[in-house]
Amino acid sequence: MQRRSTQHLSAADVEAGYALACQTTVEGDLVVSIPPQEKIERRLKESKRATKVELPFQYDIHDQPLRKYTITLEPPSMQDQSDDWSRLRRELERRYNLEGLRIQLAVLKKLGRILREGEWTVTVAVELDAWDRPDGPPCVIDIMPGERLESLWAAAIDIGTTSNHVWLVDLISGEVMAQKADYNGQIARGEDVISRIIYASKGRRDGETEKQKIEDAPILDLQSLGKGESGLEELQRLVMETLNRLIEEAAQERGISTDEIYKAVVAGNSTMIHLFAGIPPDTIRLMPFVTTINELPPLRAHAVGLNINSVGRVDCLPGVASYVGADITAGVVSSGMCKTGSLSLFVDIGTNGEMALGDCTWLISCACSAGPAFEGAGVVHGMRATAGAIEEVWIDPKSLEASYRVIGDGKPRGFCGSGLISLLAEMFVAGVIDKSGNVDLALPTERVREGEHGAEYVVVWADESAIDKDIAITAVDIDNLMRAKAAIYAGFSILARSVGLSLADVEQVLIGGAFGQYINVENAIQIGLLPDKPFESFQFLGNTSVKGAYLALLSRDMRERVKKVGEMMTYLELSADNTFFDEFSAAMFLPHTDESLFPSVTTKEERQ
Amino acid sequence: MQRRSTQHLSAADVEAGYALACQTTVEGDLVVSIPPQEKIERRLKESKRATKVELPFQYDIHDQPLRKYTITLEPPSMQDQSDDWSRLRRELERRYNLEGLRIQLAVLKKLGRILREGEWTVTVAVELDAWDRPDGPPCVIDIMPGERLESLWAAAIDIGTTSNHVWLVDLISGEVMAQKADYNGQIARGEDVISRIIYASKGRRDGETEKQKIEDAPILDLQSLGKGESGLEELQRLVMETLNRLIEEAAQERGISTDEIYKAVVAGNSTMIHLFAGIPPDTIRLMPFVTTINELPPLRAHAVGLNINSVGRVDCLPGVASYVGADITAGVVSSGMCKTGSLSLFVDIGTNGEMALGDCTWLISCACSAGPAFEGAGVVHGMRATAGAIEEVWIDPKSLEASYRVIGDGKPRGFCGSGLISLLAEMFVAGVIDKSGNVDLALPTERVREGEHGAEYVVVWADESAIDKDIAITAVDIDNLMRAKAAIYAGFSILARSVGLSLADVEQVLIGGAFGQYINVENAIQIGLLPDKPFESFQFLGNTSVKGAYLALLSRDMRERVKKVGEMMTYLELSADNTFFDEFSAAMFLPHTDESLFPSVTTKEERQ
Repeated sequence: MQRRSTQHLSAADVEAGYALACQTTVEGDLVVSIPPQEKIERRLKESKRATKVELPFQYDIHDQPLRKYTITLEPPSMQDQSDDWSRLRRELERRYNLEGLRIQLAVLKKLGRILREGEWTVTVAVELDAWDRPDGPPCVIDIMPGERLESLWAAAIDIGTTSNHVWLVDLISGEVMAQKADYNGQIARGEDVISRIIYASKGRRDGETEKQKIEDAPILDLQSLGKGESGLEELQRLVMETLNRLIEEAAQERGISTDEIYKAVVAGNSTMIHLFAGIPPDTIRLMPFVTTINELPPLRAHAVGLNINSVGRVDCLPGVASYVGADITAGVVSSGMCKTGSLSLFVDIGTNGEMALGDCTWLISCACSAGPAFEGAGVVHGMRATAGAIEEVWIDPKSLEASYRVIGDGKPRGFCGSGLISLLAEMFVAGVIDKSGNVDLALPTERVREGEHGAEYVVVWADESAIDKDIAITAVDIDNLMRAKAAIYAGFSILARSVGLSLADVEQVLIGGAFGQYINVENAIQIGLLPDKPFESFQFLGNTSVKGAYLALLSRDMRERVKKVGEMMTYLELSADNTFFDEFSAAMFLPHTDESLFPSVTTKEERQ
Repeated sequence: MQRRSTQHLSAADVEAGYALACQTTVEGDLVVSIPPQEKIERRLKESKRATKVELPFQYDIHDQPLRKYTITLEPPSMQDQSDDWSRLRRELERRYNLEGLRIQLAVLKKLGRILREGEWTVTVAVELDAWDRPDGPPCVIDIMPGERLESLWAAAIDIGTTSNHVWLVDLISGEVMAQKADYNGQIARGEDVISRIIYASKGRRDGETEKQKIEDAPILDLQSLGKGESGLEELQRLVMETLNRLIEEAAQERGISTDEIYKAVVAGNSTMIHLFAGIPPDTIRLMPFVTTINELPPLRAHAVGLNINSVGRVDCLPGVASYVGADITAGVVSSGMCKTGSLSLFVDIGTNGEMALGDCTWLISCACSAGPAFEGAGVVHGMRATAGAIEEVWIDPKSLEASYRVIGDGKPRGFCGSGLISLLAEMFVAGVIDKSGNVDLALPTERVREGEHGAEYVVVWADESAIDKDIAITAVDIDNLMRAKAAIYAGFSILARSVGLSLADVEQVLIGGAFGQYINVENAIQIGLLPDKPFESFQFLGNTSVKGAYLALLSRDMRERVKKVGEMMTYLELSADNTFFDEFSAAMFLPHTDESLFPSVTTKEERQ
């Protein structure tokens, strides 16, 4: 047996005979013992379905502002002709010690009917306060006949440029009861935030004619033109359709109506939040790169068209700048970065690579456009991390044959982000591609060939695939992946240097992003996506954005902490940093132009 | 010359040769001198166009919560990448000493564009407070490029069951700049509140099918069925269409956009307010006659579909009970009833006859359904008090020939409310009808005849009319008018008696209602609509409801006073009063069964 790497192993482990299965070549008969922890970890990784989200702290319903109260009223009579609302308010204020209670018009519209249907026993949903009015006044946002105290629903939402996530939360227990995710419906209108912003600026505006709109439109979409929508309106509609479908699915899974969902906390980058609220994002991409607003006022669901209770509160978490949004403030809070005193690097690898460095007495952040490659988009055979996605690849350095692991039990359909990182690393280590990412067409294997999209490496032959086609990675895909990883690493470097530190000073690397938890760290280091550090330095946190939204839903303190993080965080504008291009170019090699930064990575040649 | 009445004249006047032209028969040559005041009053009455509304008090813009501010900002730069809203808020708060400034989503949607169009000089419209949050926070409700301080518009609205009134108000000067009125578009769905409430309860509800809707609908309206509207939705749409047309006309008259109207204060009876807000009014007509809400929360225009600025504040004034609404609280405040210490009777004669008695250390109110006859509806040749309406009638007691005065210069088209009262009184005094309102078909004149709708009296022959038809009043019309006046007088009687007083104790009678100012008091007394009191006891205040809305628009104090009046006013439920039918029946005679209540009224027989 030959160990290709012992990076995750201590000297004692190696002495005890431990080896990394994926980094070890079998040279003869041997007996393999798999330690139990490892088996459990594998099972969790393989299921890759929504795993149960643990309660992040001792949840107390009183820490958040939604309540339900059941109350029985004296019916009106000729002796007491008080109007229905006064009757209800009087009793609610008295019984539950509320002051200055308000009511939404939507509830007034059914108040008379529900009071009588319930024969004067009703349950009301009340919002006691919001972040911008911590002292209230409380407001009745729903009413239903009889006693209906068994549930209190809310949703945590992450709007990624590529993927959207909805967690349905039971505010009685604080638990996440359903998790749904899908591609953002806006993808067809541009893969990254810049192309979305350009698309949003197209189309009908005050005084513009339909004709102008058609001429200006970069992508002619007859369906949306028929609706007389501007690009902005269309993008808002598209993301709302995705979110509303996910909310509907989550509600169906729990057998509830979406009207029972009384609140949504929303995280996402600044462009996504602007589009979600229907606010033109155009200034985000123009010097000096400012948003219209970093911290939206609390909205009502009907104002944006989110399919929860129409007067349910929609709380968009605050961002910091055009390219460091609420996904990062939420992520930093949910990462626990602020709890340790050690220097931490937080990175959310999504379509944008956003990152923050600090120890929470200070925080500095930046963002770089990574493109959607790591989310399985913008790659010929890319796909989301769902059933059929190849999530890990191994290439035999001798035969150059590929083996892989697929999510679910079926045949492979394509690569998800972690699979792509794994594949890129294996190709590099096995010599299928060189430091510059060029496929070596001279290699003695049919898997390497000139394909439709240039040179490519076939991972799955058509007869083994679920799509009856060869599943290959092309030169264009490789270039996209290289750009993505180079942009992110350049960001790390500049962030550290801007505060007079180096990446070597970083004590822990906290990795967010929906697919972050499935990254093979060693692969990520091998391609130079993550800095070369011991395995223990890395923590994989999954979707820290939706987790942050979830925390803000559970607790006023957490909501406040997201705001504080946003206020404290310094934003470094990479586009104004004249060293970015140099750092990016230097990182456009595998693992990096400066190999001394990646001492643990050895290429095939070096090994030979 | 023969004086038929000297009621409005003092003994000295009579001695000095004064005579009432309309109550005097010319028996030979004579010279008539018209006193100057009288001429002015006549001119105002005759023009009957919107007369200028005097400022009710020394107006100070600071007494109301809308403001405009012009401000110039430092543009953003790479050194200051603050988001647009933070930049604007910071400067507004500093310059104008505002705290916790908010912004509406609708303004955020154009904020970035307007700031740049205005090259960082903009004017914002700010609402500092509302009645339910007197301490703010202030909120930006509009933004426009450059300096735009010249105007600040708002609207006072009265939603009558029959007529709707819109006053466009310039909040810089406090003056009413345009007045528009029209029939409430709901009229086709029922003439009084009860039929509107029944109509509102029809049609689609949760779980109801379109088929059920058709079967249940009392009036099959294919157009509205096509829209899938419930009766309630249809009525809300209809009144909104009327109001929006009036707002549009008023805006056009002043050359402004309706988006520049930032606030509307709305008065109306409780049913009208419920329908305006889309709240089902059904409990209003069912024992024990309660509303869903007497004092609506402040709304935004888009929530009801009112065509002012979409986030403009809509403040529905508070009512007291199902049948004493905001039209009465507003009316009482605008009548000045609370300023005098004398016992006053306030009455708003509209489709409902609503009235209040008191001296503002106490107030008691009631309502009776008068029907729309006094508003020119529900009468064959009834019409609104616009050009072509006969507003006063004289019948020669000998020849039984009619003469009349028409609004405007043209030929007559029909009768407005004041014309109907005048006609009824003249017919009674001249003996065309008897105490019970029966037309005497035996009279020697062609004007009395059996018509399509029973016995009738022709006021205008076809060749003199603008409609090429005889304009007559029918037995059915007379019965409607008798019922209306009887209901109102019964209300007066019961109200006074309920507090141990008699109508004789009333020191002043304050008459509201759109047409109130054009009533001929003597005629109104002659038919027993108003109590028999000296002319000086009556004040004709016009549309006190819209005036109250106007006052509430001009001043927070006035808004507060409307609320106080509502809280102070005791409501007497006539339907629960077992003396109502007796009082009503007693008043179904001209002027009344008990003639001693009307000593000044003499019939033809008595005079003969």
